Amino acid sequence: VGAFTLVVHGGAGDHRPETLAAREAALTRALDRGWAILAAGGTALDACQEAIVELEDEPVFDAGLGAHLNRDGRVELDAILMDGATLAAGAVGAVERIRNPILLARRILADGRHILIAGAGAELFAIEHGMSLCNPGELITDSERARWRESKAQASHGTVGAVACDATGSIAAGTSTGGTFLKHPGRIGDSPLVGCGCYADNLSAAVSCTGHGESIMKVVMAKAAADLVATGHMPQAAADRALQVMTDRTGRNGGLILVDRTGAAGAAFSTAKMPWGIRNSAGLTQIQP
Amino acid sequence: VGAFTLVVHGGAGDHRPETLAAREAALTRALDRGWAILAAGGTALDACQEAIVELEDEPVFDAGLGAHLNRDGRVELDAILMDGATLAAGAVGAVERIRNPILLARRILADGRHILIAGAGAELFAIEHGMSLCNPGELITDSERARWRESKAQASHGTVGAVACDATGSIAAGTSTGGTFLKHPGRIGDSPLVGCGCYADNLSAAVSCTGHGESIMKVVMAKAAADLVATGHMPQAAADRALQVMTDRTGRNGGLILVDRTGAAGAAFSTAKMPWGIRNSAGLTQIQP
Repeated sequence: VGAFTLVVHGGAGDHRPETLAAREAALTRALDRGWAILAAGGTALDACQEAIVELEDEPVFDAGLGAHLNRDGRVELDAILMDGATLAAGAVGAVERIRNPILLARRILADGRHILIAGAGAELFAIEHGMSLCNPGELITDSERARWRESKAQASHGTVGAVACDATGSIAAGTSTGGTFLKHPGRIGDSPLVGCGCYADNLSAAVSCTGHGESIMKVVMAKAAADLVATGHMPQAAADRALQVMTDRTGRNGGLILVDRTGAAGAAFSTAKMPWGIRNSAGLTQIQP
Repeated sequence: VGAFTLVVHGGAGDHRPETLAAREAALTRALDRGWAILAAGGTALDACQEAIVELEDEPVFDAGLGAHLNRDGRVELDAILMDGATLAAGAVGAVERIRNPILLARRILADGRHILIAGAGAELFAIEHGMSLCNPGELITDSERARWRESKAQASHGTVGAVACDATGSIAAGTSTGGTFLKHPGRIGDSPLVGCGCYADNLSAAVSCTGHGESIMKVVMAKAAADLVATGHMPQAAADRALQVMTDRTGRNGGLILVDRTGAAGAAFSTAKMPWGIRNSAGLTQIQP
């Protein structure tokens, strides 16, 4: 049995002091939930999925319940899961009636025919695969409704993500988000795009990104970070370097978490904060809320 | 004034002998239309856009008019344009009422707030930016309707694309497609995804891909090809190598065209055919329909 590791994040940005305790508790729950899977010999893919469900369900993050509202006052969610063992991935963009979009991403991955399905077509896929739809209003919290009514342009960085290495040395990654505050309806950000907001390949690394989505897309940041690991960079150096390239080329900020097949991890961010946490089989547990 | 080059493709696949003349004529028209812009000192971005409009309007290709129908008998189109000078990009996914999706991609690029907008939200963006919507039925040809009625699973590879280097040494790329025959509603393939079906960066190369979309996504093929140019490969070697990695990792086929800032180009495909053509300021015109 090899070393195993789980890393989670709650989005690069300028997080409010008043939500510090909620962030810390949610990161702890997400690590616990994913860790239970890894410790029982489960897969990195399952660990990422379950950690992300926990973070989607926490209103303080911009994913699932409590996501930012778009320009028209609606929640539209993006999510992806990717399996480094097979390069299989499943992703959804701009879904409105899915309580846990990471679970729909998993169904698309398991189905195997497509990787990314958006909007009403993704909700149709959910119905056809036995998932129930929620009322779009169920995803909207009072505080997000109030923020939308004020409509002050604010940085929006509460994307969540997870990367894991399991005891067999296989890796996986996932990312889930409500996207930018006041985004245009139908906008899909970097999060659900293979290579941009997420990437996992057992030959390189598993990566989950957060930050200014369009800038992350321009440099294809997750794949760039994984490629740095493939060419010999240690995970922390790869995370630092990929982020530096993004900020150099675009002038915008973000962050990422990364793990390789040995269980070695890296985390980097250029924003004021990026809540994140790590647990590994060497006994390390660290939470930076 | 530096060397300038335009390369176009009509999709990697097993194209029918009976459409050979139509493919050749359309590739010629696309080269003519884009070339008129480059020869007048216009930008690589405009040249790609106009070449792709010509290919979208040709029913023989799987883009714009004459695109493959999805599972439910509807046309859903994906397209992207990317400017290597700025890394700016615009893209649409799963739009049903846009006659030339590459023109909507251009509006999204020009707007600059987002990169990818999907489905009904993208059509809303079009209306808000003064574009008229078409009737979805206008995009459906008799032959595609007949193919759908028979519903025989067939390889579907008529994606179109263009890459260009203009006289200032700036490069751009674009890709447009109707996606796979009988795809699930809402499915977005590699084509409109930055780094997968398209990439352009003046520091590396401009690339447009075609083939099995989900496999291209898994290896982020356009960005991989551009990275090979950045690390010293000649364009043809980069195209060959990126395609080899895709087929090695996924067992699926595809193709790509590529140009760098010097106007040097490459084209590669592992399918039976990939209609493509090139024209450059050294006097070369070559069409392989």
